[in-house]
Amino acid sequence: MPEHRLPTREEVEGYLRDRRNWGRWGADDQVGAVNLITPAKRVQAASLVRSGRSVSLCREFPKTPAGNNLNPAQHFMRLLDRGAGGGAAMDYYGISYHGVATTHLDSLCHVWNKDGMWNGRSPSQEIGFDGAHFGAITNWSSGIITRGVLLDVPRFRGEPFVTQDQPIHGWELEEIAQAEGVKLEAGDALIVYGGREAWDRVNPVWGSGPSRPGLHASCLPFVRDTDVSLLVWDMMDHTPNGYDIPWSVHGVIFAYGVGLVDNALLEPLAQVCAEEGRYEFMLMVLPLNVVGGTGSPLNPVALF
Amino acid sequence: MPEHRLPTREEVEGYLRDRRNWGRWGADDQVGAVNLITPAKRVQAASLVRSGRSVSLCREFPKTPAGNNLNPAQHFMRLLDRGAGGGAAMDYYGISYHGVATTHLDSLCHVWNKDGMWNGRSPSQEIGFDGAHFGAITNWSSGIITRGVLLDVPRFRGEPFVTQDQPIHGWELEEIAQAEGVKLEAGDALIVYGGREAWDRVNPVWGSGPSRPGLHASCLPFVRDTDVSLLVWDMMDHTPNGYDIPWSVHGVIFAYGVGLVDNALLEPLAQVCAEEGRYEFMLMVLPLNVVGGTGSPLNPVALF
Amino acid sequence: MPEHRLPTREEVEGYLRDRRNWGRWGADDQVGAVNLITPAKRVQAASLVRSGRSVSLCREFPKTPAGNNLNPAQHFMRLLDRGAGGGAAMDYYGISYHGVATTHLDSLCHVWNKDGMWNGRSPSQEIGFDGAHFGAITNWSSGIITRGVLLDVPRFRGEPFVTQDQPIHGWELEEIAQAEGVKLEAGDALIVYGGREAWDRVNPVWGSGPSRPGLHASCLPFVRDTDVSLLVWDMMDHTPNGYDIPWSVHGVIFAYGVGLVDNALLEPLAQVCAEEGRYEFMLMVLPLNVVGGTGSPLNPVALF
Amino acid sequence: MPEHRLPTREEVEGYLRDRRNWGRWGADDQVGAVNLITPAKRVQAASLVRSGRSVSLCREFPKTPAGNNLNPAQHFMRLLDRGAGGGAAMDYYGISYHGVATTHLDSLCHVWNKDGMWNGRSPSQEIGFDGAHFGAITNWSSGIITRGVLLDVPRFRGEPFVTQDQPIHGWELEEIAQAEGVKLEAGDALIVYGGREAWDRVNPVWGSGPSRPGLHASCLPFVRDTDVSLLVWDMMDHTPNGYDIPWSVHGVIFAYGVGLVDNALLEPLAQVCAEEGRYEFMLMVLPLNVVGGTGSPLNPVALF
Repeated sequence: MPEHRLPTREEVEGYLRDRRNWGRWGADDQVGAVNLITPAKRVQAASLVRSGRSVSLCREFPKTPAGNNLNPAQHFMRLLDRGAGGGAAMDYYGISYHGVATTHLDSLCHVWNKDGMWNGRSPSQEIGFDGAHFGAITNWSSGIITRGVLLDVPRFRGEPFVTQDQPIHGWELEEIAQAEGVKLEAGDALIVYGGREAWDRVNPVWGSGPSRPGLHASCLPFVRDTDVSLLVWDMMDHTPNGYDIPWSVHGVIFAYGVGLVDNALLEPLAQVCAEEGRYEFMLMVLPLNVVGGTGSPLNPVALF
Repeated sequence: MPEHRLPTREEVEGYLRDRRNWGRWGADDQVGAVNLITPAKRVQAASLVRSGRSVSLCREFPKTPAGNNLNPAQHFMRLLDRGAGGGAAMDYYGISYHGVATTHLDSLCHVWNKDGMWNGRSPSQEIGFDGAHFGAITNWSSGIITRGVLLDVPRFRGEPFVTQDQPIHGWELEEIAQAEGVKLEAGDALIVYGGREAWDRVNPVWGSGPSRPGLHASCLPFVRDTDVSLLVWDMMDHTPNGYDIPWSVHGVIFAYGVGLVDNALLEPLAQVCAEEGRYEFMLMVLPLNVVGGTGSPLNPVALF
Repeated sequence: MPEHRLPTREEVEGYLRDRRNWGRWGADDQVGAVNLITPAKRVQAASLVRSGRSVSLCREFPKTPAGNNLNPAQHFMRLLDRGAGGGAAMDYYGISYHGVATTHLDSLCHVWNKDGMWNGRSPSQEIGFDGAHFGAITNWSSGIITRGVLLDVPRFRGEPFVTQDQPIHGWELEEIAQAEGVKLEAGDALIVYGGREAWDRVNPVWGSGPSRPGLHASCLPFVRDTDVSLLVWDMMDHTPNGYDIPWSVHGVIFAYGVGLVDNALLEPLAQVCAEEGRYEFMLMVLPLNVVGGTGSPLNPVALF
Repeated sequence: MPEHRLPTREEVEGYLRDRRNWGRWGADDQVGAVNLITPAKRVQAASLVRSGRSVSLCREFPKTPAGNNLNPAQHFMRLLDRGAGGGAAMDYYGISYHGVATTHLDSLCHVWNKDGMWNGRSPSQEIGFDGAHFGAITNWSSGIITRGVLLDVPRFRGEPFVTQDQPIHGWELEEIAQAEGVKLEAGDALIVYGGREAWDRVNPVWGSGPSRPGLHASCLPFVRDTDVSLLVWDMMDHTPNGYDIPWSVHGVIFAYGVGLVDNALLEPLAQVCAEEGRYEFMLMVLPLNVVGGTGSPLNPVALF
């Protein structure tokens, strides 16, 4: 990819500042680019269902300590005796789902830079000990159901996984979409597969060190230009981002109002896309309705 | 409803014993009636999407102590400083989701009677301190996506909610389906609305005492006869069940392999069904992928 | 007690403002009145040990939901198989220990009024999402070991427990000490028994409603005059405090630098004091060493 | 130490089987060797207090993930607004305290081998999902207060810490006691310092790998012969124990009824012993009163 120039820091900062969607859906809007998913869009998504094959994009609930799971999820059991030989098994789940282990959705309050949170709000005013008062996950509780489009980077590159020295660039996303014969549209969910499982098979588990391969800041204009509502990925931001800024691609949250599904499980989806011969499908992302919550662990499902 | 006779205890025990589905999908099957959701069934469900309207069936994550929420869910916040004015808000969720407060899916290992768990397994062998080894929620991790059919009891009765002295009976479910012009089919999700929100407006919060209105054991044959895959409800089993047995309608889990979505929020769905003029739609129930888990909190969504 | 006048609101505010100990042990001091427990004081405390009888002042870890325990403590079990028939049982404890259910020690960062926290610090600067940066429980991690003096209010009054209409007053504490033949000294732990267990036997569990009997704001000068290091009690502040101020007796934390052991179990201690014929003993209060913690659940023990 | 022979596996198994204290304090006893702490013993302990110096044996509450802390403790904050500028900071603590990170006391139900738990009870009968029904921590809720004796292994050896190839042996404990001029007596707390902090300064944190230095099984007869009530240590069992048995020194729990304080912080105590010129002192170990609990995090304090 020698013909492409890396953006400068000023350009990247411009992506997050000059092109942001603040005010686009009203000064008090807490829904962001998910506003682009109209009822017609959901109908379109459902119309993609032809074979009836469903694929989960959810990793296992991360109970096991690992290099990328320093605060493992909790799972505890209780038994209830109902008498006469009857009973019940119940459990407790506890999880700090942000980070690099859990498949989860980030809501619009999750991150910010010096200019503020989504729509220009101030974190010191909106984030309290009892939760977020603006941009919480409850704003998406009727679900994010839209057309999903998978861009399969390893397949395009002919390599098993994205590497640290070759991050995914915005121009590459364009090329992959073209190669796959799909066109991203407003309200779509953009799903970028980087080959995380393949990476894990021959490397220390992805996310366990200070650096990790992923999407370069050059992807920001692609997200903004395509007007997608959601970015679903397995590898997240190329880290370190190379610009010494707090957030690069994660900035789509506060700049564009785009939701993120972090740590999605995409190897099975990529396999099914190849088998089904298409890279578009119906995607369902259904967060828990947590008042004040900054996101939700969940199980995204693609239906073909 | 004077023309109907209440089943005897022997008849109810027979519903759970003589008519059970053990072995129907193999001796080691852990999927149960969800096997009835074929790819074609999912295509049919998607074909019901016409207006694109989506409705959540999920209550608020129950953080507030209440008479029916004695072990409230936990929500704790953390802040991350990323430097240069950037940051992140993150949270911890902890929940004992079984009981009467949380919208959740029960998996096939959740309950049993003296004859055993689903497919005849023994709870003392299958339930451990680390989770369930049979019938855990992971067996449904590709999602339960099917045709949903709402039976609106308050509308049928012309009353705001089901009362303690008039539980919902199986013959009434048949009558409601007929009145709504829908027919339950194999693999469908049966959704029974009892008017819980209306109840809560004029009574102590539903589920806060030892007795509560809901579905009578006479509903068991209807579930079995229709071959539904899932029962979604807001009021659960009429309690006490009147037969001094550990489980009445909850027995569909171990007897028929039918999943339960407990504590669904159905008032908005009933309203939308009335507005849309139809009681069938696409239903999405997507549980977390917890190894050994006995169920999952989740956000079921209906799409019209 | 007709000869005593209730203090005015201005007088109570003066107790907390004019008589406070800010700066007494240095502007940056985080130890407060516990500074008064010198090595000599600990030797004196140990010299009180004569019969060797030990008494716990700790209630049961509050796992059971109750009217005064709306967020019950968590206790979950795990098993570890070590092979060859060997094993281990382990558990998880989770607790929000502040409130009225758990026996715990409050550290100096726990409460404040408009004038600020202990030593004049600002809560908005010192309390973060990661804990308290000033006055945390770690400052007392070498333990609070001193002479304990029990004032037995029910015995003095000849009634089983303190009632809502007859709160404990400062002049009564003086009279009880005199009647018991003890004199409070600098660095002592003042232990005020109100008869909570007896209350619970004939009333809704103490602390389950908006009002509850306890110590009146008139006790503040007694605490200040005696220069005690610690206040241990079963009934806490008379509530409502009658002055429409955020904190009355709890104000000893931020005004005087005095620690509080809330929800102590004092009925057994009162019984032993009566049997041993003395109201002074060695007291041990040993908090967990939690960086940033606002207090600690613990088991205070009195040794005679 | 060339003159000493390592015990055979048969001898070690004999220590745990032939010399056990089952039945010594009754067939149903749940207190074990703590029975040896008589009131007179507590008076003796208090009589050792001369300088009034107190020393904590408690590590920091382990919130930070580390190689020996794979399930870190939780600490979450909440704020309470009390109006008029008043407020409170409160927190939640959650901890799986067993393992190698937290200073905690093991109760008699914690471990077992093929012969059973303390006093011959069966773990399958006594350990439930709701806790332990025999030998739980509540049996020690009046506190373990006794004479503590520190054996300082690094000082005796003239080396900073115990190493993997030179575990602590029983005969060495005898020699150290003699060199220090102390004699262990019935009911004492035996405290064995291995130099864990010094180890941590030049090695991967103690307890982070499959092997770690500590006390050899040859220490078992010393514990049994001296009739101590408690073993307090920073390095625990030499691991692997070399005999392929589930528990070596940890077996004092089920065989002798001796409590263990694991992961004590002993470097400061050793320093103070040297400064004070004595290795005996008053020790206070005060567990939380958790019904069914297998132990307790706590802050043991030594008073000189």
